[in-house]
Parts: sequence; structure tokens; C-alpha cells
Amino acid sequence: MTQRVWNFSAGPGALPLPVLEEAQRDLVCLPGVGASVLEISHRSKHFDAIIQEAEANLRQLLNIPDDYHVLFLQGGASLQFAMVPMNLLGDGSADYIITGSWGQKAFQEAQLVGKARVVWNGKAENFVRTPRPDEYQIDPNARYVHFTSNETIQGVEFASEPYAGEVPLVCDMSSDFLARPIDVRKYGLIYAGAQKNAGPAGVTIVIVRNDLVQRAPTHLPVMLNYRTHAENRSLYNTPPVFAIYIVMLVTRWLLHAVGGLAQMERINREKARLLYEVIDQSDGFYRGHAHPEHRSIMNITWRLPTEELERQFLQEAQAHGLHELKGHRSVGGCRASLYNGMPIEGVQALCAFMRAFMQRHA
Amino acid sequence: MTQRVWNFSAGPGALPLPVLEEAQRDLVCLPGVGASVLEISHRSKHFDAIIQEAEANLRQLLNIPDDYHVLFLQGGASLQFAMVPMNLLGDGSADYIITGSWGQKAFQEAQLVGKARVVWNGKAENFVRTPRPDEYQIDPNARYVHFTSNETIQGVEFASEPYAGEVPLVCDMSSDFLARPIDVRKYGLIYAGAQKNAGPAGVTIVIVRNDLVQRAPTHLPVMLNYRTHAENRSLYNTPPVFAIYIVMLVTRWLLHAVGGLAQMERINREKARLLYEVIDQSDGFYRGHAHPEHRSIMNITWRLPTEELERQFLQEAQAHGLHELKGHRSVGGCRASLYNGMPIEGVQALCAFMRAFMQRHA
Repeated sequence: MTQRVWNFSAGPGALPLPVLEEAQRDLVCLPGVGASVLEISHRSKHFDAIIQEAEANLRQLLNIPDDYHVLFLQGGASLQFAMVPMNLLGDGSADYIITGSWGQKAFQEAQLVGKARVVWNGKAENFVRTPRPDEYQIDPNARYVHFTSNETIQGVEFASEPYAGEVPLVCDMSSDFLARPIDVRKYGLIYAGAQKNAGPAGVTIVIVRNDLVQRAPTHLPVMLNYRTHAENRSLYNTPPVFAIYIVMLVTRWLLHAVGGLAQMERINREKARLLYEVIDQSDGFYRGHAHPEHRSIMNITWRLPTEELERQFLQEAQAHGLHELKGHRSVGGCRASLYNGMPIEGVQALCAFMRAFMQRHA
Repeated sequence: MTQRVWNFSAGPGALPLPVLEEAQRDLVCLPGVGASVLEISHRSKHFDAIIQEAEANLRQLLNIPDDYHVLFLQGGASLQFAMVPMNLLGDGSADYIITGSWGQKAFQEAQLVGKARVVWNGKAENFVRTPRPDEYQIDPNARYVHFTSNETIQGVEFASEPYAGEVPLVCDMSSDFLARPIDVRKYGLIYAGAQKNAGPAGVTIVIVRNDLVQRAPTHLPVMLNYRTHAENRSLYNTPPVFAIYIVMLVTRWLLHAVGGLAQMERINREKARLLYEVIDQSDGFYRGHAHPEHRSIMNITWRLPTEELERQFLQEAQAHGLHELKGHRSVGGCRASLYNGMPIEGVQALCAFMRAFMQRHA
């Protein structure tokens, strides 16, 4: 099989085809370089141009203010779960808003490092929504307030930033980073594994205000200190060269082919609308997980009447070229991830299949 | 320019052309998968086959015993400088043998984490050799003895493992990993950034004996604990999928095209011999850095009579398609890295150029 299927994987997820085609064309020999991007020194002027464009594209797409650093790190969001408290907690405490599995993990790691407190937890309601501001109290002395903008497993997404008073907001934005415009000024620190909307697995993007970088204690291992990476512009040691190259291509595609994040959001909202419409009009055959006003435009989750039907659904979908629709092993059911790289045609194909499947089985 | 040059970069370094060509062919669509390797879920059976083959190839190439784990991590050797003492030190101390810049960095990180001691340091002699066993004393209670098998910057390489008594040997093998056979049984832990001989930047291979994995304290952040990665077979969180895929292709090439590490070592020794011969027969025009019996077969370092001649040498070499020959910014001079991916034809071209340059300028 050399024909591409519709890939709804929750991550690593689908990438824009023009990005893959350009990467393929140049993989053995980068034009003007004489070597593959897999072989070039991270100290070469060729890589310098790549990482500088990746950063410049991100700054332009997100309108990142000058007092924020853009870092390209390794280890995924899971390492950030530890690095954030290691760098920012000091002797203080942090407040965590938990709306799903990833927020829970971030909180557990913070507890290993220092003092952390849960101010709101959606677990009792089975993670179906984000909180109202009157449902939780922020400690005004907290070092930061942590939240997960989009919970990939449950499909719960914040429509806008949660209330945090004057306390710096820290956000795990892994699964909706670059899917819509945000106001970076509202955040102290944003981190995101690239493998959803921004690139392949293997690079983690951190956007952090300079005053927070300066909080890092001096005794931290060098590689776990944001100051190291800020001062060395992500080149303290060998960075994940190829993953950063793909982020550069993806952000270039977002800027010049898509036309920016407002346009990307319009496309993403339309994709999600099409799929939720099928679910909402199915008379309960497809049951969405999250409350409608809190559901994700990235990860659409639903159940069928029985687990047997779910198995059949996934099997037939696969046969129709609709892949990776199985829900996360911790919650079951079905999930379609509609990241930036998923074209509307793929969603239309999924919707048509879901309507036909329902007709046969409802 | 779409013609490939001879790339002597110290890392990321040259990769085998057949590996690059196969990765290019399949980059948009992995056969039988319908998606790019950049887009596949790390929980898919497709990636499972990739990471399992990468591990199996490494086990076969290095004859790794069953009680050793093979881990695919992120963060490079620089993060291992901290993870090793975080996992292995406990309340004890470790002994460090320092033969160059990287060993020095590893020791500095260990000091940030706990107690570490230098048992031998080649710095006073400007890092030109490895120590004799009678030149240092190992603390029999040390938790481990750390050394750097090949110092990439100075071009100093251990011919065989240093004496460590009954204390587990820990080795930063980044720049000669997979360049020659080793007896893994002699080591407690081996770590290596892949970007020299094993693959691209973005994945770090750790080979660690099970009893050492079990030493990790329970309070460590999950991602910094070897036990996490051993128990989850490097799939606790999203691993660097593409980098592991390339390691799989490189190790497959080593096994089936090259014919194993003994054969790879023969080729590497012949490449180094050719280049050292030019240096040794140059009547001091090219001055090698390390003592002959301690010099590296991977990173050959030398000076010319003047810095002006060095500049001219690098410029003319570049014009002859011989790239990345500049020495590390911390030591100057010239350096040619002859990793597994550099064919003998590249070394022959460099030798011919060096002889001609000498004739014009000696």
C-alpha cells in the first residue's frame, strides 16, 4: 500500500502533505548544502537559518512579544510536567486546574518536585467540562496556575483562558497549539509537544516570559534549567535538528499556504462542526463525551450503543481508509483527531461513513 | 547544489547513503501503512515493529545480554550527564576519569546532583592521552566509575575499557558507539547520542544492566527515572519516532550491508590509518593532537603551521567538496570525523587534498 489513508491519530498525527513532499524531495540532499538535513551540524549556518526561521514563523503566527523566549526542547510535555515546577516553584506552591488525564499527570509530577494544590478537578464528573471562574479559588501567592488547554483523551477544551488573577498562567497546549490564535501576553509559560499540530514527535516548544526564566534555581541540572536554553537559543547541546526542520516547514505552511492562525481556526472549526453535527443528529446512536460547550475542536470523542458495535465500527472504518479512530486505551470508545494536517476531505469521508454505518445499524 | 559533498561534521554526522535513500523513498507513505513515519502513532503496530527491530538489531550487533535494557531516550548525552547520577548515586559518590571536554562536563553535572570525585584528569597535559591503570585509584565503594570512550573534541579514544575494579563502569560512548565491537558485560551503563554513528540527532540510546535500573530513587521525576523507561520499553510517553526509525535503518545496514561491527571496525581503522599516515608523513606540517597510541579512529584532529594556513586550508578544502573540517570552537585547528557513514572514498579524497595542499605550502 503506497496510497495515503485518512489518519485520525491523536498524536503523532497527520501532517500537511506539502510539508511531507518537500521534506521527501530534500531528504538526501538539502539544496545548497550538499548533505541531508539529518547530517548537518547544529552549529552550521544552514541549521542556523532553519532554527531562526522556525522561531520567526512562530513569533509571527502567535504575535509573540519580545520579552518571551521561544525554546525548542526534548522530552515531550511529560518532561515539562517536571521542568515547570523545578524551574518555577522555588519554596512556594502552585495551583492546578484538572480537566482530564494530562492535567492529572502534570499535577502528580509537580507533587514529586514540590508543593502543588488542585483548585478544581473534573474527575468526579468524568471530565466532561472546564470549570466556571466561580467554582475555584486561586491562591494569590501561588507561583503559577497550571491548566491543560485541550485534553486529548477526553476531548475537553477551554474556550478561553481560565481565570487566574494576577498569578502567571502556565499551559500545556500540546494538542491545540497553533490550531487557533491565542494572546501570548495572558500566559507566563506555554509548552507543547510538536506532534499534534506543529510537527513530528521529538521536539517540544516552550514559550516563556523572561522574568519566569530568571526564577530558575542555580542548582538545577543544566539541561533541566530554562535559563540554559534561553541563553543558548536552544543550542546548548545538539537539538533535534530534523524535528525542528519540520516545525519550520509546518509553520511556513501555516503562514503562507493557510494564511495564518485565524484562517486555520476557521478551517478547524468547520471540520469539528461537520463531525459534531453527525453525532448530534444521530439520536443518541453516537454519544459525544464532553458537554457541547466544552468539547474540543481537535479531538472528537464518542461512544456507540455497545462495545461490539464499536469494534465493528473501527474495523469497517479501517476498511474504508479511515484509520486510527480508536479511543485512548484508558477510556475506550472512538476518537477522531482533526489536527491542522487533516484536510476537510478526510472529515467529510468520515462523516459519510458514520452516517452510512448508522443507517445499517441503528 | 543537489550533489552531495564529503561531510566530515563531528555530529550530527554523515549517514549511510542507502539509509537516506530508503528514508526518502518512504517519507510520504510508509509501505503497508498509508501514512508517513512522521505521522504514525507510537502505539501503532507499525511503530512497534520499528522500535522492536531497532532494539533487536542493537542486541545482535553488540551481543547485549538479556539482563541489560536497551532504552531510547531524549535530551542527548548532556541530559545523561545528570540522569546517571540522579539514578545511580544515592547517598554515595562516583569516580570520574576525565580525558577531554565531555568528561569534564559530565563531572560538573554530577557535582550538581551529588558527590563525585575526579580520579584522573588529562587537562594539565592538554588532553592528549588516556591514563594507565597505575595512575589512578578507584574508590572500591564508588557507586560507579565514569569515563568517555572517545573525546570528540580532542580526538582521544580509549583502546579498551579503563580499570575500575569491581565498580560498575558507566560510559559516555556517544562518538564511538557502534564503530567497533565491545563487550557489554564489562559495563554497568552505556549511553550515546545517536547523531554520530547510529542515527540522527534527537534520540539517545542507553544500555543499562537491570540491577542498576533498580537503584533509582522513588522520588525522581518520572521522565528522569530509568525504571520508567525500562518498564515501559521506551514508550512511557511519545518517543522520537522518526529518529528511532532511522536508528532501525542504520542498524539494519550495519548488520546486513556492512556485515557486523567487526567488519565496521576494520573499515573505520583503515579510514583512520589513511588519514594519520598523511599527518605522520608530513614532517610536522600537519601536527596531530593526541599521542599516537591514544588517538581516535573517529575524530582526527590536527593543526597547521599557522592559523592563517588553517583558514586557507579550510577554505580550499570546502572548494574541493570537503566540508566541516573546522576544529571545535574551544580548541581550534582542524578535525575530520570519520564516522560509520563516511565512505573510504571520502577519506581518500581528503588525503589527496591534504598532500597537494602541503606540497603547495610546506
